[in-house]
This record gives sequence, C-alpha cells and structure tokens, in this order.
Amino acid sequence: MIFIGERINAGFKDIKEAIVNKDPDPIREWAQKQTKAGATYLDVNMGTASANPDDFCWMIDTVQNEVDTPICIDNNKIEMQKIAIPTCKKPPLVNSVAAIDERMDSLFPVVADNNASIIGLAMDAKGSPKSSDKRVENAGMLFAKSMEYGLDPDQLFIDPIVMPLKHMQEQAPEILKAAGQFTLFSDPPPHIVCGLSNISNGTKQKSLIDRTFITMLIANGADAAILDVMDTELVNAILTAELCMNRGIYADSYVEAFHG
Amino acid sequence: MIFIGERINAGFKDIKEAIVNKDPDPIREWAQKQTKAGATYLDVNMGTASANPDDFCWMIDTVQNEVDTPICIDNNKIEMQKIAIPTCKKPPLVNSVAAIDERMDSLFPVVADNNASIIGLAMDAKGSPKSSDKRVENAGMLFAKSMEYGLDPDQLFIDPIVMPLKHMQEQAPEILKAAGQFTLFSDPPPHIVCGLSNISNGTKQKSLIDRTFITMLIANGADAAILDVMDTELVNAILTAELCMNRGIYADSYVEAFHG
Repeated sequence: MIFIGERINAGFKDIKEAIVNKDPDPIREWAQKQTKAGATYLDVNMGTASANPDDFCWMIDTVQNEVDTPICIDNNKIEMQKIAIPTCKKPPLVNSVAAIDERMDSLFPVVADNNASIIGLAMDAKGSPKSSDKRVENAGMLFAKSMEYGLDPDQLFIDPIVMPLKHMQEQAPEILKAAGQFTLFSDPPPHIVCGLSNISNGTKQKSLIDRTFITMLIANGADAAILDVMDTELVNAILTAELCMNRGIYADSYVEAFHG
Repeated sequence: MIFIGERINAGFKDIKEAIVNKDPDPIREWAQKQTKAGATYLDVNMGTASANPDDFCWMIDTVQNEVDTPICIDNNKIEMQKIAIPTCKKPPLVNSVAAIDERMDSLFPVVADNNASIIGLAMDAKGSPKSSDKRVENAGMLFAKSMEYGLDPDQLFIDPIVMPLKHMQEQAPEILKAAGQFTLFSDPPPHIVCGLSNISNGTKQKSLIDRTFITMLIANGADAAILDVMDTELVNAILTAELCMNRGIYADSYVEAFHG
C-alpha cells in the first residue's frame, strides 16, 4: 500500500498557524511522526493559508530537510504545481489534475520530465461524476493522455472521486465499481488512490467508515490513499486487506512488523 | 446482512458438554445472547458430540423453545438434514450441500417442500476448488439445480469456500473474485455466504482478519455469513460495509440503532 500522510495540510489549525508564522516546528513534527508511522509520501497542502509559491516551497523544504519521505504536492493550481515539482529532492506525486485536455497537456510534460507521478481525478470540466460509467470514461481519458506523454502506468494514480457517505450514499457503490474497472486498463494497472476522509465527512463514525470503505476499495483494486496514517486501526485494516489480496506474504507478526 | 450465529456448535466445549449431559442451559443461553446481538439465524451443529438424530432434534427444540430466531441446520449428512428440516418451526437454512448431483437431487426436493433455504458449497466430488473459475463452475451447478427444483434465488446461499489465510493465502483473492461472479447469475442474485472464521484459522489476529475479509467479501456481493455475532467490531464493520453498498439508509446513529 502507498500511504500518503494527510496531516501537513492547512486545513489543520497547527499547520495553518505554522504557515502564517513561518514556524517550521509543527511541519517538522508531522513529517517525523507520519514517516515513523509508515507514510510512503507526505502530502503538503497550504490550503487558504497562503497563495504565495514561496510559502509552498518553504513547506516542502521544511519537510525535505527533516525526512527523506517523498512529497505529495497537494495544490490544485497548475502553475503552483510546476513551481513545486523541480524543488522536490525525490520524484514527487502531484495531486492533482482533472481529465481536462488543456490541463493535462500543460502538466503531463513536466511530470514526465521530472519522473514524477500524478493523481488524476476521474472528473472533467463538468465536475464530479455521478455514475461509475462516467468515472471510467474520465479515467480512460487520463490514462490515454498519460500514455501519450510517455508516462508509465506506475506514474498514474487514478482517483475515482470519493463522495461523503452521509450525503451521497448512492455514490459509494459507484465509486467501488469504477475502481474495479480501472484495474482493467493495463497490466500492471495504474495505481488507484483516493482522498479517504471524504467518505466519512460529517459522520460520527469517521474511523470505522474510513477503514471499512478503504478495505472495500482495496478489494476493488486500490493500492494508495491519502489518509490519517496515525490511525492504527485504519492502517491495520489496510495491512490485512492487502494480505487478502495476496500482496505481501502473511506472517503471524504482520501487524507488529509494520509498526515496529 | 444475514447474520448466522455460529456459537451453538459442539466445537465449543460448553455446547459439547451440554449435548453429552443433555443440559439445555448453555444452548438456551447462547440462543438468547446471539438473538439479542442481532442474529438472523442460529447455527446448530453437534459436531462429534453425537451422531444420534434425537440429540440433534433436541438441540433444535431447545433453541426453538427459547427464541423465535430461525435455525441453520449445520450437519453434513443428508439423512440428518432430512430429519431436522420438518422439526423446524420456521423455514430453516440448511448447511450444507456440495455441487454433487446425487446429493442435490436427494436434498433439494425436501428443501423446496419445506420452503427452506440451502447453503450450497462451491465444491464438487473432487473437493475444495483452487481457482475462482472452478468455484464459479461449481456454483453454476448449484444454481442450475436449484432452479430445476423450483427454488427461488432467495433460497440459495452460495458459499465460495473460504480457506485459511495463513496456510493458503493465494486462495483469498480467488474467493473474492468468485463471489463477484456469483452476483451475475441472476437479478436479484442468490445469496453469498461463508463460514467466516475459516479465514483467520490459526492466526493471531482473528477478529481483525475476520472483519477485514468479510468487508472485502461484501464488496464482492456477500450478504450473509456464519460468524461470531458477539464480536461487536465485526458486526460494526459489516453494518458499515452494507451502507457503502447502499443497502439500508445511512443515519448518524446506525451503529447504536443496531445494537440498541
């Protein structure tokens, strides 16, 4: 599983304050904690705390000066993404691009040149899809365009667009079904990723819903998620789901081995 | 979800002793506890404690005199099943039959005459299947034969045959894949069931593995399981997985509502 630690995000108060005050400590702390907890990438998102590329690069540098874990550049502006990509010491994961030609044509060459990876959202200019079919259609556009620019399927992470269970319950099976179809695009398939916390948005059972949904998404081919890597029960569910998919080899101590 | 409570089984010491001593109390106690915990059926299995049909019927009667929850007749001998079926006050679920013509031809008429349901094992005379394809082939035989005897798809529970993750890890994805195929047999499809504890046999993380695997199996269409209905974390994972399949309607209190 590719664990993308969600915590260095200005949606959290301590990170927002860190950006405003240029205080590196909270960022360093979460870089260390998430890395220790097993994060594969560290998501970096400055939200509405700033629109200044210097601040975003400062966040990335703060992380990179603290840990070796690669960066997930989480910003929806292509210009910001293009500034951030070359500052990454290790090939970053870029979060994200929609299936819109001019955006993909602008961003994919930079992704390819830097040996980066990209999260492609299975949505187009009309916004979030309602059906699995529309998700698959959009994902197909992402996949085709990524091939055109010479990206390997391993460099493409397709996000089926997770909607809140509380408000759009009928979307959940559509998301799961779409993911299952993404696995048929190529062999090996592209990665399948999601922003996991969306599913439990506004609910009272966040951790339970998060770990249940990601387990079901793994059953449909997901191998990556932006998530709370500090949630041990969530991580343990994922480790177990991966064994049930016969990824990795079962050992009695598989839980302890990961957390050790 | 159809929760089949596993606990009235002579594999558990208290039930074995209850059978040997003709002491109804442990059976009554587990009938009450599992019913209160939400069991849809109560599995009754006398294992090796006795081979006497009178003992089996005594177990069933003991349960029926205590609670209204219908019985899952868990005995692999057709003659025993045929004796037990008419003693059930409510239409029972019969566990089980393999995809072997003479057995299905012997049992299915009795199932049909009593408006019972049947768990069909996706195995044949050659034993447990190794691949998803063989599971689907066997399940197809069960489905075709059940149609021949006028059973509704709602009366057929297909079991993909769960193997221990610890010893046959490569089987887990085959089981999941097979279940997904069973859902294509008809619309509405037959039920998909499993003996859940098999997956965690011999492991140190039984509850974690059980709830993760059943969540993945639900993502592939399962809607029934023989399980430890007293395991609250397991039940909560199942309730959540069902919401993610858009079965039932989300409410903030969905967990409390079930356990209340």
